[in-house]
Amino acid sequence: MESLKELGEFGVIRILEEKLGTSPLAAVGFGDDIAAVSLDRGRVLVLKTDMLVGSTDVPPGMTMYQAARKSVVANVSDMAAKGVRPLAGLVSLGLPASLTKSDIVHMAIGLRDSAKEYGFPLVGGDTNESNDLTISIALFGVANRKRLILRSGARVGDVVAVTGEFGSTAAGLSALLRDKRPSHLAHQLLQAVYNPQAQLETGLNLAASGAITASIDSSDGLAWSLHELARASKVAMRIDHVPIDEDTVKYAAQYGHEAMDFALYGGEEYHLVITVNPSRVERAKRAAGGRLRLIGTVTRGPPRVYFQRARSEIRIERRGCEHFKHRGR
Amino acid sequence: MESLKELGEFGVIRILEEKLGTSPLAAVGFGDDIAAVSLDRGRVLVLKTDMLVGSTDVPPGMTMYQAARKSVVANVSDMAAKGVRPLAGLVSLGLPASLTKSDIVHMAIGLRDSAKEYGFPLVGGDTNESNDLTISIALFGVANRKRLILRSGARVGDVVAVTGEFGSTAAGLSALLRDKRPSHLAHQLLQAVYNPQAQLETGLNLAASGAITASIDSSDGLAWSLHELARASKVAMRIDHVPIDEDTVKYAAQYGHEAMDFALYGGEEYHLVITVNPSRVERAKRAAGGRLRLIGTVTRGPPRVYFQRARSEIRIERRGCEHFKHRGR
Repeated sequence: MESLKELGEFGVIRILEEKLGTSPLAAVGFGDDIAAVSLDRGRVLVLKTDMLVGSTDVPPGMTMYQAARKSVVANVSDMAAKGVRPLAGLVSLGLPASLTKSDIVHMAIGLRDSAKEYGFPLVGGDTNESNDLTISIALFGVANRKRLILRSGARVGDVVAVTGEFGSTAAGLSALLRDKRPSHLAHQLLQAVYNPQAQLETGLNLAASGAITASIDSSDGLAWSLHELARASKVAMRIDHVPIDEDTVKYAAQYGHEAMDFALYGGEEYHLVITVNPSRVERAKRAAGGRLRLIGTVTRGPPRVYFQRARSEIRIERRGCEHFKHRGR
Repeated sequence: MESLKELGEFGVIRILEEKLGTSPLAAVGFGDDIAAVSLDRGRVLVLKTDMLVGSTDVPPGMTMYQAARKSVVANVSDMAAKGVRPLAGLVSLGLPASLTKSDIVHMAIGLRDSAKEYGFPLVGGDTNESNDLTISIALFGVANRKRLILRSGARVGDVVAVTGEFGSTAAGLSALLRDKRPSHLAHQLLQAVYNPQAQLETGLNLAASGAITASIDSSDGLAWSLHELARASKVAMRIDHVPIDEDTVKYAAQYGHEAMDFALYGGEEYHLVITVNPSRVERAKRAAGGRLRLIGTVTRGPPRVYFQRARSEIRIERRGCEHFKHRGR
């Protein structure tokens, strides 16, 4: 019998997609950052759920407050990528019996503060006992169907852009595995791990600008996100430049790692990866308030992501932060 | 430090309610079966999430198909109690690496079949690795705020009613703990455990009848549900009769249990517990298609639930199926 390790997270997702099928109600189904169902007059109800699990998503040293906050950030980030403001959220908890009252209080405050940070209320939920800490958030918003920025809208000639620098989360996790007592540099990198930020206002502004054609967040890694845009839009992406966080470059040099690997394949970073109409790049830059870095161009041909060096392509692999397969991440 | 075992599930919920507070957007907040936020023109978005956890909610002998189905039923049951048809759902999974591909396929089919049974699509989700099987469902519906049947609407003089007989789930679980190889009787009882039914059509019809004033599902136990209606409505409830499943009576007699305890304090049964306007009882009966059993009357005084015997009250305890406190259920 095939195990989950052989099947991988994306194998599981394929089975679910196949069995659950597509509904005529679904305005956006599986295979995008959010789901959406038709509401009325061209409006859709935008739905998002993402689960944080203690044994895989909470690295050593992360507090309950930070874990709760991270669970909210991961959900908000996907709404941000679609340009949708969360209207309200639910929280479903699985709590190990070993937790204390103080853990619960810090978790509740982490949930409250992060929901407040992104401007929506958590209005209900469910509490359960579990052997593995579980914080499952569901978010809801309402949007005009035509204004949702999907993964599938990239066109040949569009500019590929991102809203930040990459690598610090993967470098931080690497530092964490290396040393019990983090160096000053590792401490800086760990900020990205413990206190991630979702780009909600940037995402809303970019969507409102009318300048962007496709969008995804980078939570599964930059390489994976680029491949997803290419797959969904049926285009190729030539990457000219990958913005790498400076501390990540330092850390990689110091310990003999490849900074580019951290930046491309790390994951759990919550930047936006977008494509921009080439005649509206300045508008997109203004909307992103100076955060935007142009990294490549959408090109013709079978879906793939590559660097161009002289006349040959160097492929960027389609891999990222997949559950089940990479146990040690 | 206070542990979760001392705090109990309802202690955890109190902390969450206190820290998360009430939002002006929330049309219905914590403390009811569902949450709701204002949408427009008197309409609300109705939100529900409920998590199934392998170690506490999946008894021995339950298949992956049945576990997936149960996770859907538990959510639909709460929507049924409010008279709201689910429009769409999300599913968030935490999967132990020990599962096989076949487990995933059966789970996916269980999700599909149960969603179909209750007439809504599962349109998206999230997949994670976890040490404890976790199926977290979130459901959404749209309703007229004024037509939502809350826990708080019971008035003195209303008739208390339920949509089924109680006890078989608790008796079935008791039988399961007793014998590895279940008797014919236990086998019958286990149907309620393995294949629970949500009363969606009955709940929708009851709400549409205009005859009912308050409603809750009985998933935390009949006694708990009655206490919740009493608490939320600030009334007392005199119970004259508890409909107990016939096989439960037989099983209890055979093994020296109290059938009434199974019926009152068992939980994980998905009947509706409602209060009915006394002038509209016949209308409610028709709406429930013959399922309705009248069990008592709403009375004045401090919130409590009791049997009347001659001149004295015998209190029905406020206890049910609470996580953390009762490890062995």
